[in-house]
Order: sequence, then C-alpha cells, then structure tokens
Amino acid sequence: MNHDWLKASIMYQRGVGAQRQPITHHLTEERQKQFHYTIGPYSEPVLTIEPGDRVIVDTRDAFEGAITSEQDLPSQLLKMPFLNPQNGPIMVNGAEKGDVLAVYIESMLPRSDHGICAMIPHFGGLTGTDLTAMLNDPLPEKVRLIKLDHEKVYWSPRHTLPYKPHIGTLSVSPEIDSINSLTPDSHGGNMDVPDIGPGSITYLPVRAPGGRLFIGDAHACQGDGEICGTAVEYPSVTTIKVDLIKSWALSWPRMENQETIMSIGSARPLEDATRIAYRDLIYWLVDDFGFEQWDAYMLLSQCGKVRLGNMVDPKYTVGAMLNKHLLAH
Amino acid sequence: MNHDWLKASIMYQRGVGAQRQPITHHLTEERQKQFHYTIGPYSEPVLTIEPGDRVIVDTRDAFEGAITSEQDLPSQLLKMPFLNPQNGPIMVNGAEKGDVLAVYIESMLPRSDHGICAMIPHFGGLTGTDLTAMLNDPLPEKVRLIKLDHEKVYWSPRHTLPYKPHIGTLSVSPEIDSINSLTPDSHGGNMDVPDIGPGSITYLPVRAPGGRLFIGDAHACQGDGEICGTAVEYPSVTTIKVDLIKSWALSWPRMENQETIMSIGSARPLEDATRIAYRDLIYWLVDDFGFEQWDAYMLLSQCGKVRLGNMVDPKYTVGAMLNKHLLAH
Amino acid sequence: MNHDWLKASIMYQRGVGAQRQPITHHLTEERQKQFHYTIGPYSEPVLTIEPGDRVIVDTRDAFEGAITSEQDLPSQLLKMPFLNPQNGPIMVNGAEKGDVLAVYIESMLPRSDHGICAMIPHFGGLTGTDLTAMLNDPLPEKVRLIKLDHEKVYWSPRHTLPYKPHIGTLSVSPEIDSINSLTPDSHGGNMDVPDIGPGSITYLPVRAPGGRLFIGDAHACQGDGEICGTAVEYPSVTTIKVDLIKSWALSWPRMENQETIMSIGSARPLEDATRIAYRDLIYWLVDDFGFEQWDAYMLLSQCGKVRLGNMVDPKYTVGAMLNKHLLAH
Amino acid sequence: MNHDWLKASIMYQRGVGAQRQPITHHLTEERQKQFHYTIGPYSEPVLTIEPGDRVIVDTRDAFEGAITSEQDLPSQLLKMPFLNPQNGPIMVNGAEKGDVLAVYIESMLPRSDHGICAMIPHFGGLTGTDLTAMLNDPLPEKVRLIKLDHEKVYWSPRHTLPYKPHIGTLSVSPEIDSINSLTPDSHGGNMDVPDIGPGSITYLPVRAPGGRLFIGDAHACQGDGEICGTAVEYPSVTTIKVDLIKSWALSWPRMENQETIMSIGSARPLEDATRIAYRDLIYWLVDDFGFEQWDAYMLLSQCGKVRLGNMVDPKYTVGAMLNKHLLAH
Repeated sequence: MNHDWLKASIMYQRGVGAQRQPITHHLTEERQKQFHYTIGPYSEPVLTIEPGDRVIVDTRDAFEGAITSEQDLPSQLLKMPFLNPQNGPIMVNGAEKGDVLAVYIESMLPRSDHGICAMIPHFGGLTGTDLTAMLNDPLPEKVRLIKLDHEKVYWSPRHTLPYKPHIGTLSVSPEIDSINSLTPDSHGGNMDVPDIGPGSITYLPVRAPGGRLFIGDAHACQGDGEICGTAVEYPSVTTIKVDLIKSWALSWPRMENQETIMSIGSARPLEDATRIAYRDLIYWLVDDFGFEQWDAYMLLSQCGKVRLGNMVDPKYTVGAMLNKHLLAH
Repeated sequence: MNHDWLKASIMYQRGVGAQRQPITHHLTEERQKQFHYTIGPYSEPVLTIEPGDRVIVDTRDAFEGAITSEQDLPSQLLKMPFLNPQNGPIMVNGAEKGDVLAVYIESMLPRSDHGICAMIPHFGGLTGTDLTAMLNDPLPEKVRLIKLDHEKVYWSPRHTLPYKPHIGTLSVSPEIDSINSLTPDSHGGNMDVPDIGPGSITYLPVRAPGGRLFIGDAHACQGDGEICGTAVEYPSVTTIKVDLIKSWALSWPRMENQETIMSIGSARPLEDATRIAYRDLIYWLVDDFGFEQWDAYMLLSQCGKVRLGNMVDPKYTVGAMLNKHLLAH
Repeated sequence: MNHDWLKASIMYQRGVGAQRQPITHHLTEERQKQFHYTIGPYSEPVLTIEPGDRVIVDTRDAFEGAITSEQDLPSQLLKMPFLNPQNGPIMVNGAEKGDVLAVYIESMLPRSDHGICAMIPHFGGLTGTDLTAMLNDPLPEKVRLIKLDHEKVYWSPRHTLPYKPHIGTLSVSPEIDSINSLTPDSHGGNMDVPDIGPGSITYLPVRAPGGRLFIGDAHACQGDGEICGTAVEYPSVTTIKVDLIKSWALSWPRMENQETIMSIGSARPLEDATRIAYRDLIYWLVDDFGFEQWDAYMLLSQCGKVRLGNMVDPKYTVGAMLNKHLLAH
Repeated sequence: MNHDWLKASIMYQRGVGAQRQPITHHLTEERQKQFHYTIGPYSEPVLTIEPGDRVIVDTRDAFEGAITSEQDLPSQLLKMPFLNPQNGPIMVNGAEKGDVLAVYIESMLPRSDHGICAMIPHFGGLTGTDLTAMLNDPLPEKVRLIKLDHEKVYWSPRHTLPYKPHIGTLSVSPEIDSINSLTPDSHGGNMDVPDIGPGSITYLPVRAPGGRLFIGDAHACQGDGEICGTAVEYPSVTTIKVDLIKSWALSWPRMENQETIMSIGSARPLEDATRIAYRDLIYWLVDDFGFEQWDAYMLLSQCGKVRLGNMVDPKYTVGAMLNKHLLAH
C-alpha cells in the first residue's frame, strides 16, 4: 500500500501527534477482558494513549464467537442486546469536546481461518424486522462458515471473493448517552461502511473527555447495504494509528482515503441518511476547501458519489463522497 | 373523573400492589436535586417505592425554566443535550427484567400561571432539521408565553383551549443503553402521546432492576404530531400511582384508559411506528383477549384508531387503539 | 342528519349552483357501462351535469363483484391493474383548471346484504408488498363475507360494528396524467379517508375541462389506516351533490363537515403525507380564515388532529384537521 | 469502445432482431413535432420500427430550451407538468405485454455547445419540496450555463469534468396509466441512473402493444442522487439500437453493460427503492443464472453494489448491481 498520500492527509496536517514517534500498544483479549455492547461515557477505560500512538486491537467477531457450526441457530445463541462486542474504550490524552479523533487503519488481518455469515430471523434488509414490523413468518435461519485468508474469501466452490476488510463499528462516546453497539449515529457506531478499511482515516467528533474510542465488528468483505444483515464476520488483528485534532467541530463522522473524502450520515429513512451525508460534505467543502455553498451543491449534483453502508441496522448509513482531485485550486 | 373502571383495569387485576394501602411520596425539586437528560441504568435513584405507592412529582418544563420571556432566544438559551429534564429514577421494589411498571396518572396540576410554546430553529415537523437535513434557512425563532390554569389555556385573545394535560416523557430504563430524554423508543421516553394524561395507565417493560422510572415534560395541551415541535410546556404537579405486574413480557409501551387500549410504537419513518403499534396491538388481542391473529388484523382494518403522538422527535410516536367494548366476549 | 350547517359551508357560500334547484341524475350500471381503472383525461364522459346537481351513483365493490365466496382466492380472481372500478367521468359544466369541484355526500346505502374483507397476498400494512419488497412468504389469503345493512356491520358472532360508510375513491382528473384507481394523489384518488362519508363535503382541484369526476370504492366501515389492506367493501347507492367553486386554486383535496375542516395529503413515507396535510391546512387558515402563518403553525401544535386514511395503497393518505369553532373571530 | 461483449449480452442472445441487418431511422425534431410530458398508451406513435433497428434521436433538454441565460428564472419559465419533453412513442413491431424491449445506447453526442444546471425553487434533495412539504423559504434560484463538448464539461474555471453522458428518462408505456415524464416507476421513466449511457443495455417490461418507447432528458454528466435536482441538462443526438425479447416477464427495469448487471427500483422512501432493486436482482440470479435464492441474498450481502440514481424526483431510483464475473459457473 502506498502511504505517501498520508503526509498530505488532514490527519497528518492537523494531528497533534503527527510528528511524534508513536508508541505501539497491544489491546489483547486479556487486556480487554470485558467487551462492551453499549458505547458511552460510563464504562471503564482499558487503555490510555498519546495522540499519534498505534494500537494493535484483537477484535472478536460480531457474534462474539458464539456461532461455531453451520448447524447453530443464531436465534438461540445470540442474546440481545449483548451483540457486536466492542474493544475499548481507549482514552486519548488531551481529547476534549469539540476536538476530533482521527483513526487511521494500517492493517486488518484474520485471527481465524474462517468467517461467518448468517441470516438471523427478523433481521436484514429484505425481511420484516422489529422496526419494520410485519406479520410474515421469518426467513429461514442460516449460518455459513466461510474459509478465508489475508487474500481471499472462499465463499463457495463457485465464488471466491477478494479479502477486502473493513471495520464495521468505530466510535467515540456520546456526551451523556450510551448507545448499543448495533446502532450507528453521529458518534460513529455500527456504520458498516466498506470504505473504512486499511488505508482509510476516519474522523470522529469528540464529545466526552478522552474521546473514548471503541472498535470492533471486522468484516472480511461486505457489499453495499450489507443486505442480508451480516457480512463475513470474523475476528481480526486490526492495527490503528490514532491522532487528535484540536478544535474541529464535526457534527458527523468523516472519512478520507487516498482518492476520496467522505461525509457519513446515519438515519432512517435512507434519504435522511443521504441528506445528512451530502449536506455535511457541502459544509466541509465550504469550510475547508474554499467552495461557495451553492456551487458545492450544484457540483456534487454532477460528480458526487454515494456509498450505501448498511441498510439493516437500527439506523441506515450512507457516505457522500467527492474525489480529491476536485479539491485542488 | 369516574374511577370505577379502574377496578377492572389490567393494573388493578394484575398489579402486585393493588390491594395495598398506598404510601404517598413527594418528589420535590429539592429531593430530585439533579434532573436527568438521559434515561438509563447509570444514574442514582432518588426514591424507592413499593408497588402500589403514589408519587407526587414536581416536574420542570421541557426548557427547565430557561425561557422566561417572549424575547428570549431558544437557540441561545437551550444547550443540547441538556433538554427535557426528567425526574427520577424512581426504583420500584421487586421490579425485574420481564416485568411491567404500570403508571396511573391521577392528576396533573400547573405549578405556574403560564406555559411556553416555542419555534426552535431547525426543529419541528414542517422544517428541515438535523436529521432531515436541508440547506434552507431556518424558520423564524419564536417564543409564546401562554396564560393557563387548571381549566383553560389562554392561547390568544381569539383562541382559548381546554386544559387537557398529559405527560410527554415517561420511561423505564433500557437494559444497558442510556437514551437522551428527547428520544422515544421501546422503553417509553419522549413519546408525546396526548392520551397519556390523567385517567390513563401506561404499561412499560422493565429491563433494569427496579424498573427505574423517569417522568417529565408536562404539556397543558397538545395536538396530534406536536407539529411545531413544542406543546404548551409547563411545570406541573403530577400525581401518579405506580404498580408492578410480574412476568408480562412487553416489547413496547401500552396504554389503557376507560374507553380504550393502545399499543405504542416509536420509529422512523412514520409508517414503521404505525406498524409497530398495530402489530403489538394484534399480539395483545391474541395473547390476552382471545382473538385469532388474522381476525384481529382484519377487524382492526375496520375499527382500529390511530393517534399520532409526535412527528418532531428523533423517533416519531404512534398509538394504535381499539375501543374496549370490542374486547368483551 | 342535521343539514343546517350546510348553509354556512364553503360549498354553499361559494358554489355556483348553490341557489339552483338541482336536477337529480341516476348513474346506473347500465348508464356507466364501462367502469374505469385509471383516472385521467382520456376516457369518455358518462354524464354531464350543471353545478349544484344531484347524482345517484350505483357503485361496484372494489373487487368488481369478482369475489363471491369465502373460498375464492383473490390472487386468482383479481387482475392488476383492473381493480377498484370507478364510475364516471362526470363532467361539470363550466369547470376549468383553477376551479374546485365540491362533492357533498348526501347518503350511502348498501346495494347488497353483505360486504367483503380480504387479505390479499403481498398487500396490506403489516406485510411485505411489491413496493416494500421483502423475501418473506406472503400472509395467508383470506376472504370474509360480512352481512350488513344500513345500520350495522355483522362482522362476527362476537363483533357487530356500526354501519359507518364512506367513499374510498373520489377524484377529479389530472391535467395530462392518467393514474390508476388504486393510487391517491393530489387529484384525490384512492384516499380511503373514513371521514369522506355522508355529511361531508370534499373539495377537489379541477385540472382538466369539466373536472371529470370519478367515484367508487364504497366502504361500510373502515379503521384508521385500513391496515389489512381492505375495508368492508360493498356495492352502494351513493348520492352526491356536486357544485363548482370558481377560481379557488387548491393544491390538494380538502374536506369539510359539520365540526371540522381537513386538508388531505397523500405520499410516502407517511410523514410526508402528514406534512402535506398540515402545511396545506396552515395555508388554508392563512388564506381564508385570517390567521397569521406562525400562529397557525403553533396553534395546530396544540389542537390539530390527524386522521390516518390509508397506509396500504401506493401512496399513504393523511388528513390534518381543525375544529371549526376555532375558525371563529 | 469495445463492443465485443455485446455478442454475449442478453440482448444479442435473446433478441428477435439480433441477426437482422438493422435499418437506421432518424427521429428529428421535425418528425417528432409534439414532444410528450406524459408516458402512456394515449399518444400518437411517431415511428414504427422492427426489432433490431437503430434510431438516431434528437432529444431536447429537460427544460425544452426555455432557459437560455443565467439570468433566467426557472420558476417563471417552467410550467408544470410541461417539463422533461420526451421523444416517442416509438412502436416496435411484435412487442406485446409480457415481452421486453432492450435498448442499447450506442452513442450520445451534444447538439449544443453548452448544458444547463439549475436550482429550481422547492425542488432538489436538500430542500423542502411539494412532497416533503416544509414552511422554509426556498433556496435561491440559480441557473448555470456550462460549456461542454464530446470530451469535457467545463463546469468552472476551477473544475473540468469528463463528458460522461447518460439518458435520464427511458420508458415503455404502462398498460392503462399515463405517467408524467418527471416520475420514474416500474415502466422506466425519469430514473436518472448515470449508468444508462453509451455502452449500456436497458431492459424494459412491455405492457402496451408495440411497447411504446419514450426517450429524453440527456445529461452530460451526473453525480449519484442528482442532489441539487438537475444534472448538466443538454440537447443530444442519442443513437440507440432497440430489440425485442419475447416472453421475459420483468417487473422492473434491468440494465446490463460490459462489467455489470443491474436491477432498478423506484419508490419512496429510498430503502423501498433499494429493496425493490436488490430483490429483483436476487430473482434474476435465481431465474437466469442458476443461483439458489438464499445463497444469492447472502452473496449480495458480500459483494453487491448500489447506485443511487436520483433522490429528487417524485420517486427515488436505485440500482443494485453484481459484477458479471460472478455470474460464471
């Protein structure tokens, strides 16, 4: 992976720790001990770092290892709300409300030789759910164990997919709320945006002291919308570099990679998630890149791109993007 | 008010404390000390009661008294997320996950000679908001101080409305989440259902030990949808009787009054709130009133009623109702 | 029924034909010959009337009589888009774009001793449909024949409901579109608003010469939302009085009865139908009743009422109402 | 452009006219005479072709040339519903209900040296509209004239975009409805999917004799969602090849290009458009490519792609895609 662009990234331009020699921390399962199912200011920190530090995180899969065979029934093994276990909270020294945590994902490697995809009753994009309440019988319950390595996902004899990992859930803490790890919102959360993988920087709005970073829910690959409700869920070693940007008052998460900047909105219905994302992208273009507001609006109408993250979680997530070459003067 | 029907209510038929001589508690501002803006398991109880006890609660208005003149600017005086202050949590002895708290509202009286209605920028049903993100300028900011007493709301020289109070926010605690007091969900919260006033019993699903009852946000009157974003917000003396029903596994709040039973759903889009409410009402008819499921579905298609609670909060709230005379065998 | 209020109605105050001695026309099945499944400017008129005339309309049920036993399968007998047969178009002399047709329903009587309620596969409010596309199996297909007369609907041995008829579909023609009779929109259409029964006046915006009035889809009773997808569908003798109001530029249908005025919106999601209705009601209060816009908005937040018409048709329909005594100066 | 893949396309494999020597027709403005603003079975055909024929179509811009300067006010010059003029209907010999028209776009060339982008009051994705009814003031009205040629769109001194044309509106006729040309639905219509450009084949479900093909609304480029409401609208010479596939009972439009197959849904809210698209794609994989239904659902959850077409028209449009290399056995 070409890391040259990183030096020009917002993270490196504005990060407090960009010039520091990073310390590397390892957040093992032992160190984590208790995983979290709610993201808020009330849990005990497991690690405190300096801006610019690297953390190697051993994540569990979204089912916390409860599903081990294709004969398992998720409806019996999974107990709401104890799903989607999160590592953290990681405290970043100096982070205060009004700042931003920048999370660069250096790498994601499997900690298992397989991942799991499941169809869970009354969960998914093409079925009635607890929120889109129907009287229909649920879809059949299904579990797939999928072999994988750091290059390929061996979906079936017919279909091999590239290993294209991302982290499904990445969050700072809300100010006073604590939100279950299944729900994305303006603090991040279970966004399931496939672009938030190695080579991406996610910017999260700090609202509680230390920022309180949570991370989990690695996916070996995922399509737009995560339509059946799950990706290829697997335990990972995810290496992140975390920096602190002072006094950048974001309302919603933003993302940057080599080619693109992205604003991320989470809401229902899906048009509201898209509106949040596009409006925030316009604000970003105006605030940081010298655009006039209506010109930004009209230009995005010609070349903006939209990524559907998830359309299955309690809120749906959309990223609105612009190619970086259009940011140049 | 005729209280005879109460003896036949679910609360009296199934409540642990129905036969007890109730003790009356007074939850004054002094006793409450710190009001709450998030509803969850992490706050300190202010009161512990036995099932069947009465509590007189001194509620603050939704602006916590910050708005005192029609020249005040809500955008300057109100600070998110510190809005909609809640009394509580009140612990009910014996309440455990899987039980239900029944909250009968005996009376609601004004603690002030006026209430407040405000148009708050980027908030309301007919304006772009932070979730339905638009680029339009906000609507004008407006504050109305409205004289009222226990019989009338003196809206304007032209319009006098009946004093028809209800409690906007009524909640138990989620199991592990803590949810801001502006948001309704399956734990109750900021439902803004006008029927939840004197003479009504609300049933809330206990998920945390003691139930942890929160209450606040009195409205002297409110239309369907609370369309401008606020009702006639006022400080009240609200007297409730709280009982405990063991082993009634509700998924969403339910309500009962002399004429009607109601299931309550909160979600976006509004059809999902309605679906939740109607489906839960069908489940209720089947579980407790001897209906066959499809007969219930088809009968509600002929005589079900819908109340739009709020269409302005982070989730919208709908009640689906059936007249009680149709429950008889 | 007390008809005194009619003299003060908008229809009588502004109708071109209010002072005329009405002629009574009878639109029998024979005269109608070909019923219509699409509402537009391309069909042959069946009747031309003067403003103020009375028309007795023999409507067919929404299934056009195809369902005759509880063993019938709607999925085999009903053929899209040939559903919901409409009488009309009735031409009103002098009606031009920018005018309004006022339709007062004098009476609705059954033409059969029973009505029909059906659960149709992939149709209804609590099931996946062709528009809310799911992979779940459909709900069971069901047909109920329900005895009825002009006083009661004999739903089941346990449940007798009042005969409370309304007309489900009432329309003028769009200007150049022709819209299937299952869909409500700004021209009227399949609104399924229970208030549009005897004693109500519906105001429809003329867009094509003659207005081209269509009418059909009588319901012997219906709950809010018509949640299972059908009401008690029956053939009726519906007597209407039709008048013409010149130069009243409505955007959406409006309704008036003895107690209430209502604006009607049809859209998805349901909040958009509600927004249309409430905004139009505000505009109406401002234009015709001397309200200041923001006062109307804030007052409706205290005493506006919402009726959910249908939540099953291709667009959902909502009425926003205000009690007439609040219109007085 | 590499046209080799075409021989393996569904159009060439199943098209009635694939082996014919095509005749080339030219649908000039003179021949078209009257452009159409509603898409249905009631208009006079302008051209009849054999399956496999080529048609060179001179399209007008979506404003029908009414906007000629940046000082023009769309609100004064554009008159609903006379917008988005369509060429056609083109009759295809032999096309009957149950068949499919395949429309391959060979090329799109500008007929002008500029296009137009406009912000129209109460229209667009980040503003209140007639359907998402708000009380906010409209956004400012703006017109941009944008120089372009067959390689570039000269948006501004700062921003040059590639000329990447597509046809915004492509339709067959509904069976009995006639739908304004601003609305997309299952017949095609104003989908505004950027992939429907040169090199793509769109499959449309025939419902009226001859299919009745309508085409218009060329865009020199367009971002996902067409967020400000308009693309770079321009008059084009669009060359299409139209074939007929017998007995392929599509419910919604589908698209194929060299790399991808796509199912297209149009609905509100946006999740319903996405559900329609993904479900139809699953059905397609099952019917034509040997997939088991649940395997298709779960696989798309890993590698399906979503294109947001428009989020500004009366219905929103979404395409769900799969890369063709995953169709191989």
